[in-house]
Amino acid sequence: MSSSQDHTYQRGLDILAQIDKENYQAIVDSFKHSPAPDLGRLAVEFNYGQLFSRPGLDLKSRLLASVAGLTALGNTQQLRFYINGALNVGWTEEEIVETILQMIIYAGFPVALNAIFTVAQEVFESRRARRDGNG
Amino acid sequence: MSSSQDHTYQRGLDILAQIDKENYQAIVDSFKHSPAPDLGRLAVEFNYGQLFSRPGLDLKSRLLASVAGLTALGNTQQLRFYINGALNVGWTEEEIVETILQMIIYAGFPVALNAIFTVAQEVFESRRARRDGNG
Amino acid sequence: MSSSQDHTYQRGLDILAQIDKENYQAIVDSFKHSPAPDLGRLAVEFNYGQLFSRPGLDLKSRLLASVAGLTALGNTQQLRFYINGALNVGWTEEEIVETILQMIIYAGFPVALNAIFTVAQEVFESRRARRDGNG
Amino acid sequence: MSSSQDHTYQRGLDILAQIDKENYQAIVDSFKHSPAPDLGRLAVEFNYGQLFSRPGLDLKSRLLASVAGLTALGNTQQLRFYINGALNVGWTEEEIVETILQMIIYAGFPVALNAIFTVAQEVFESRRARRDGNG
Amino acid sequence: MSSSQDHTYQRGLDILAQIDKENYQAIVDSFKHSPAPDLGRLAVEFNYGQLFSRPGLDLKSRLLASVAGLTALGNTQQLRFYINGALNVGWTEEEIVETILQMIIYAGFPVALNAIFTVAQEVFESRRARRDGNG
Amino acid sequence: MSSSQDHTYQRGLDILAQIDKENYQAIVDSFKHSPAPDLGRLAVEFNYGQLFSRPGLDLKSRLLASVAGLTALGNTQQLRFYINGALNVGWTEEEIVETILQMIIYAGFPVALNAIFTVAQEVFESRRARRDGNG
Repeated sequence: MSSSQDHTYQRGLDILAQIDKENYQAIVDSFKHSPAPDLGRLAVEFNYGQLFSRPGLDLKSRLLASVAGLTALGNTQQLRFYINGALNVGWTEEEIVETILQMIIYAGFPVALNAIFTVAQEVFESRRARRDGNG
Repeated sequence: MSSSQDHTYQRGLDILAQIDKENYQAIVDSFKHSPAPDLGRLAVEFNYGQLFSRPGLDLKSRLLASVAGLTALGNTQQLRFYINGALNVGWTEEEIVETILQMIIYAGFPVALNAIFTVAQEVFESRRARRDGNG
Repeated sequence: MSSSQDHTYQRGLDILAQIDKENYQAIVDSFKHSPAPDLGRLAVEFNYGQLFSRPGLDLKSRLLASVAGLTALGNTQQLRFYINGALNVGWTEEEIVETILQMIIYAGFPVALNAIFTVAQEVFESRRARRDGNG
Repeated sequence: MSSSQDHTYQRGLDILAQIDKENYQAIVDSFKHSPAPDLGRLAVEFNYGQLFSRPGLDLKSRLLASVAGLTALGNTQQLRFYINGALNVGWTEEEIVETILQMIIYAGFPVALNAIFTVAQEVFESRRARRDGNG
Repeated sequence: MSSSQDHTYQRGLDILAQIDKENYQAIVDSFKHSPAPDLGRLAVEFNYGQLFSRPGLDLKSRLLASVAGLTALGNTQQLRFYINGALNVGWTEEEIVETILQMIIYAGFPVALNAIFTVAQEVFESRRARRDGNG
Repeated sequence: MSSSQDHTYQRGLDILAQIDKENYQAIVDSFKHSPAPDLGRLAVEFNYGQLFSRPGLDLKSRLLASVAGLTALGNTQQLRFYINGALNVGWTEEEIVETILQMIIYAGFPVALNAIFTVAQEVFESRRARRDGNG
């Protein structure tokens, strides 16, 4: 591994730590025993070290764009991480709900209903539970 | 038409005027001679009068979410209107390009390439041409 | 809430009652404690009060179109409601199966297999169980 | 080619002739000089000889389902043939427009706008032109 | 059932036996008590008897194409069968992982992550368990 | 630009040269005057320098997977490059057609018809024309 790639990887980890300080290491580690052990490094380097770290758009706006795009695509599994991250960098629950609802225009009600009921509701509740000391 | 619906329709037109003052009336009128003449009213009322006008998220953020969602879905036709609108409400060309590039993570390179080459490039150039007095 | 919107909402509820008399109220209520409590009203007004209630196509045909569209999109979650509704307004199980199978042409076998095995089969069986007094 | 397959192929051609008597032969012939010359036979046999010809759903309903599914999928190219066919078997322009508009609920406005503006409008106008002797 | 169709059906079963000797009969049988009892025959005849059996591409390459296409479409349910089949006809686990990872370029990270974590990992482990006598 | 990234970029260019020796430089250059001038470098490094260059799957198989995935996704614009590349690395026209036809099973007839008629046919003919000295 070259020092340049190490630098990109480290920059990616730093951004992941800003998005989800508590869980990012577990996510990166989850790849280790998967059939694609180096996919974690690839994803950290490219997605966070190269794309999220580009200077032209601030991290907060990038997370809103992520929630919008994943909702429109109907991809609820990755959405969980990004809704959590969007709350961590300063978006309110209401702003996230509105971002999801707006996707109704472009992708229809079903993807928005799935995002609200199977992801947002659970993320919001689990954060509330943890904040209240039950999590 | 009830006065309440007229109110929603007017609120939708006001938001459309903020998004694209120069072209929104032509877009609304384009429905009149289509096979769905009342689809224009329906779209103005629901999309802009009811969804875009909700208080929980500002207009500028809504336009970023729109560009993200439509890029991810690969829908280049409606993207043109929203990229233009995003520039009108204060996003820079660079911020729009970054929003599109970020969709590479969630939806792959082809949708981002299409958005850059078949929409963003043309919208940016036609605005430059008009600004320079050639448009 | 204006009386005109109330009227649209009521018209939507009336159509929902025709589609699924037994369950529509529970569905509308399910939004109340979700992160988007007013999404239920929005969906009733727009989807049923404004689109389903348009005079140009009868309710029975609209439900066939719904089953076709949701099957093609691979959206099994909302499909459950519409297959149930399609049976309620007079389509036979065989006609619904045929509508799903026809989507093989446009969207491939996997979406049809999912619709048959994860939705239709369960809806048909649970109706049979209830009719036989075990439901 | 066995006589059984010939029978399926002929049954497919008969259904195609009911859907679009004037153009079906040209469509079938268009495969002959394509890189997949036998795809025409495969499509006629499977799509029309085996699926459309199944007894459980009438041809008119099948065409409505086709328009719904292709609109939802955003596939405007094949939609042209089916909108034309739907009109040929007895659906009105208004019923087709309503079927397209209903897909807004499940797949969003962009796919419905594309179906109305780039397909339905053109099919309706070209039929009117031909009927008026200008086609 | 004509003898020609029987021949196509038998050819389809022969190919299915090459793809997954242990499970294909159970899969074919699973349709029998579904709402579409003849869909099994239709799928065997068309997908395997007519498409997979065409002479222009060998079975091994067809299975790689299947894994690629289903990964790109995000269809994890049918992917299980094809990943298992791809291993049966001689592809290595590494080659399947690489095929999935390559879809990142065309369809983004989420579909590849789903394919790796919810399908490939489980198929690989269950085969290892069976081989080790615990399956 | 670090020497490590330069190395990845060069490795990507080498693979692109194997896929399409005549056109790859023009493709890379086309980004230079686009709104995302560094997207070309990003795509070369990630798609070809990092993914295509991984040792676990040979280049020829990767191109078949690419044709399969892009056909299934209905992305005809990028498909042109990969069909051309697949022919360059040794696949026959017939094998490419079969790969496209097989996607009928997973994604339906429309995406396969589009791939055959709007991409494969044109790529095959333009290669033939050039080979015959008319290109």
